[in-house]
Amino acid sequence: MQLGLIGLGKMGGNMRERIRRAGHTVIGYDRNPDVSDVGGLAELVERLDGPRVVWVMVPAGAATQSVIDELADLLSPGDTVVDGGNSRWTDDEKHAAELGAKGIGFVDAGVSGGVWGLQNGYALMVGGDKEHVERLQPIFEALKPEGPYGYVHAGKVGAGHFSKMVHNGIEYAIMQAYAEGWELLETVESVTDVREVFRSWQEGTVIRSWLLDLAVNTLDEDEHLEKLRGYAEDSGEGRWTVEAAIDHAVPLPAITASLFARFASRQADSPQMKLIAALRNQFGGHAVESSK
Amino acid sequence: MQLGLIGLGKMGGNMRERIRRAGHTVIGYDRNPDVSDVGGLAELVERLDGPRVVWVMVPAGAATQSVIDELADLLSPGDTVVDGGNSRWTDDEKHAAELGAKGIGFVDAGVSGGVWGLQNGYALMVGGDKEHVERLQPIFEALKPEGPYGYVHAGKVGAGHFSKMVHNGIEYAIMQAYAEGWELLETVESVTDVREVFRSWQEGTVIRSWLLDLAVNTLDEDEHLEKLRGYAEDSGEGRWTVEAAIDHAVPLPAITASLFARFASRQADSPQMKLIAALRNQFGGHAVESSK
Amino acid sequence: MQLGLIGLGKMGGNMRERIRRAGHTVIGYDRNPDVSDVGGLAELVERLDGPRVVWVMVPAGAATQSVIDELADLLSPGDTVVDGGNSRWTDDEKHAAELGAKGIGFVDAGVSGGVWGLQNGYALMVGGDKEHVERLQPIFEALKPEGPYGYVHAGKVGAGHFSKMVHNGIEYAIMQAYAEGWELLETVESVTDVREVFRSWQEGTVIRSWLLDLAVNTLDEDEHLEKLRGYAEDSGEGRWTVEAAIDHAVPLPAITASLFARFASRQADSPQMKLIAALRNQFGGHAVESSK
Amino acid sequence: MQLGLIGLGKMGGNMRERIRRAGHTVIGYDRNPDVSDVGGLAELVERLDGPRVVWVMVPAGAATQSVIDELADLLSPGDTVVDGGNSRWTDDEKHAAELGAKGIGFVDAGVSGGVWGLQNGYALMVGGDKEHVERLQPIFEALKPEGPYGYVHAGKVGAGHFSKMVHNGIEYAIMQAYAEGWELLETVESVTDVREVFRSWQEGTVIRSWLLDLAVNTLDEDEHLEKLRGYAEDSGEGRWTVEAAIDHAVPLPAITASLFARFASRQADSPQMKLIAALRNQFGGHAVESSK
Repeated sequence: MQLGLIGLGKMGGNMRERIRRAGHTVIGYDRNPDVSDVGGLAELVERLDGPRVVWVMVPAGAATQSVIDELADLLSPGDTVVDGGNSRWTDDEKHAAELGAKGIGFVDAGVSGGVWGLQNGYALMVGGDKEHVERLQPIFEALKPEGPYGYVHAGKVGAGHFSKMVHNGIEYAIMQAYAEGWELLETVESVTDVREVFRSWQEGTVIRSWLLDLAVNTLDEDEHLEKLRGYAEDSGEGRWTVEAAIDHAVPLPAITASLFARFASRQADSPQMKLIAALRNQFGGHAVESSK
Repeated sequence: MQLGLIGLGKMGGNMRERIRRAGHTVIGYDRNPDVSDVGGLAELVERLDGPRVVWVMVPAGAATQSVIDELADLLSPGDTVVDGGNSRWTDDEKHAAELGAKGIGFVDAGVSGGVWGLQNGYALMVGGDKEHVERLQPIFEALKPEGPYGYVHAGKVGAGHFSKMVHNGIEYAIMQAYAEGWELLETVESVTDVREVFRSWQEGTVIRSWLLDLAVNTLDEDEHLEKLRGYAEDSGEGRWTVEAAIDHAVPLPAITASLFARFASRQADSPQMKLIAALRNQFGGHAVESSK
Repeated sequence: MQLGLIGLGKMGGNMRERIRRAGHTVIGYDRNPDVSDVGGLAELVERLDGPRVVWVMVPAGAATQSVIDELADLLSPGDTVVDGGNSRWTDDEKHAAELGAKGIGFVDAGVSGGVWGLQNGYALMVGGDKEHVERLQPIFEALKPEGPYGYVHAGKVGAGHFSKMVHNGIEYAIMQAYAEGWELLETVESVTDVREVFRSWQEGTVIRSWLLDLAVNTLDEDEHLEKLRGYAEDSGEGRWTVEAAIDHAVPLPAITASLFARFASRQADSPQMKLIAALRNQFGGHAVESSK
Repeated sequence: MQLGLIGLGKMGGNMRERIRRAGHTVIGYDRNPDVSDVGGLAELVERLDGPRVVWVMVPAGAATQSVIDELADLLSPGDTVVDGGNSRWTDDEKHAAELGAKGIGFVDAGVSGGVWGLQNGYALMVGGDKEHVERLQPIFEALKPEGPYGYVHAGKVGAGHFSKMVHNGIEYAIMQAYAEGWELLETVESVTDVREVFRSWQEGTVIRSWLLDLAVNTLDEDEHLEKLRGYAEDSGEGRWTVEAAIDHAVPLPAITASLFARFASRQADSPQMKLIAALRNQFGGHAVESSK
């Protein structure tokens, strides 16, 4: 089938390739003319036969909003838009309403796979009405990994991004779990070969996982991670997961601890610990250290 | 080779079977005469040719100590004892010294595998001197899963149990990660099929793992876990992991949060929340609920 | 001076009384005619001499928004509105803009004091332009406690509610601190008189505080809090504090832990702990408990 | 009455002074001859009339153990020893048994007061048998603050140190509460005067406390704490509090978070965050930062 694909960055570019390999026609647009198949959105829409299907794969927030707005003008009733970017699930309902008012369908798709997706397939979590989701089925089939897993129609509009967001929240805490364990093992004297302990865990243990495999890869490159700084960004979904939990009064201690550990890792000096040092000095005469 | 195996419970019994399948001779002892091959430790020791190798697989603490004490009397210089139970790593050095004073070698082995071990093999994390560990190699080979993983000589005496303990600490936080995510997904209205979301994650995602596979199994049996109470025991290693981290000043927020969540799950009513309810009433006139 | 006061509930009613005691004229409006001085907002506005000052003390969200909207129509350029309710700081800027477009000033005031405020005074944290804040000074003086503390012009519009919100976040964690300590003391056998330990802390210790005094009061009424259920509500500001922290990438582990402990206290059974129980059963054959 | 006092450091020296001011005779010993009243423990014991009372005020652990051992030899049946240092409560029972075997009484006293104690008095939490505690009463009266608070006989041997330990655990979380709030306020633009917000909280708020007063003092010296490094030590009792909670399966999320925040503050670079940075790079191609 034909697909319009907007956004050909690290993710979008590889997805175009994987969809094409499956025999579909992809007309891609990107602001970067070196990778774009067309000169603009109008041309992209023009080149697709109706009813059209357009996949949006641009940064969440303003960029996605602006593309949705343009598509609302350019597309026709019966067309369908998929937002496969990292949009917050709360945006999905707005976008569905905006497009729905013009008779255009909307599907949200959380996409996982990163740099391994082109080769192994992308996991897809999809939200939307059954009729819109079904129109996309051949594309979902092309993108997803082989085998019975890697694709779900999770529920109504927003459910795709919500599920992907929770996936990422879980990811934060699993990464934090291995990281805490690794630091503790590296700290004790009796354990002389932490990397090999991690490697051994890849079979027969309760904690074997793909992230563990990656951890072994990374320790094979730099056994004690001496080349790296302990500095971790976060990309939005972890924050949204905690906010969603707060909205629903769900306690999320491990995921939130993982998010806060990242926040702290980015502070050259901790303001809150300054106050604690100052208080300890005030009541106990404990020594403080000067800032540099 | 010949192995004496003390403790033929859920774990030990299956291990005897797996070692025998690999062609070794196992003489097992258990207090339960229905499963025991011999009438007592003295008979077990007598039936082994020297230099003997005896694997202890009994509950950590007093039971293990008492077996170690008996073996110290019964065994001869050049024999080797393996503690494959869930002993705290701090006990290992004591046991190694006690046995070492009589010329008996000591190896500690953390064993993972649970009810799946007989079929898939047991992951083994081993600590001790090279010469003692090497004597056990054929048994380790028999127990471990096929393939390159599932066995590590992690370091000195204690390193095996320490590594297994950290494995379990990591396990706590990974389970907590999925559990938090599952509860959040179950809470929101838009996601209508949480079980299928979990199933879809089994391929192509960052969070695919064996524990995720088990979670899908369990949701297939009871989609919303309506038959279960939210009550989780902990088995010692999670606590020891946090204590080891405190000893070494390593922050362990996600693993500790996971441990505390289990503690809280076992309280019919939370004493600390009573005080908070009382304080809110005192300063703000907020309503309290009576205990039943 | 003259003040219009909208909302005469638990807080507003006492505040009217305290302002009147200071010699000011308060015209109060409440939907409940038994406590209201006027029949409606129009009458309230009519009875005030210009330039008018109107204090809004109604529930945050829709109720406050609706009063602000009405006042925008009824008031005149040069008048000033104070929002003394528990509005989220993000609403303040919207309200200031809405009123500002009509030449009406806006001040936000976080008010602390609860049931003790009438007698001891209310702590006030105020945000807004200097000229608007200064017009309110006599009212702030009437409401605040005697002495040098209890009032601050914290910054721009929103700073009052933001400061009050952070006050509440801190309050959550301080309460949690005492509550955790109390539960731990109640648990150990050697400490036979926990209430007297708390009482003794009221002088000479690092942790003496007003909340500690309240805790002693409450333990004097019910030494082991046997009459209460461990069930704690939260009132919005704790959640907003965590959300603000997430927006600014500030780690807030203790305050967030305190919020989550309240969430958990309200769950009859923990969904996330069900999954953990189920997983432990799957991989280790550990027993589960049935839901009742 | 007469008191032997061993250890005349920051705490002990001021305590000697305060007890003397109350009219008692204190014979102090310290390894530092400049402050010591006697040349050694034997001389100290000799100079006291029986039945003797000796207060030990030296660092917890080996130093305290060594003094207890010496006193067990030097003292006579009917004498009493008080351990007023920061001993772990688990040591108290051992010390009581060791001394009790020779007919010597033992009392453990948790002492709070820091650099303010000489002037304001020391809060005392005491454990032991009634008969031993009563012999000390005049000294406790001399040390404690004026008024009805500041002293408690908390329970059996160990209860004094246990209560003091929990006091310190609570202290950790209260300090963390203010510190988190302070950092958040300093981060947002609208709040232009955080120090004055803190100052205003000293009256009329729910969170007024002595630690808040100290925080204002410290902000008066250095408004944004620019001279300090965010580096906080911990002194043992926080760790023991968490360990005691783990022993008793009491969830302690806020206190533990406070302890971990201190651990993290002392790491120049976070090992666990290195692994997280590495994993993010592996699966998502996210950039990493090099260590310096």
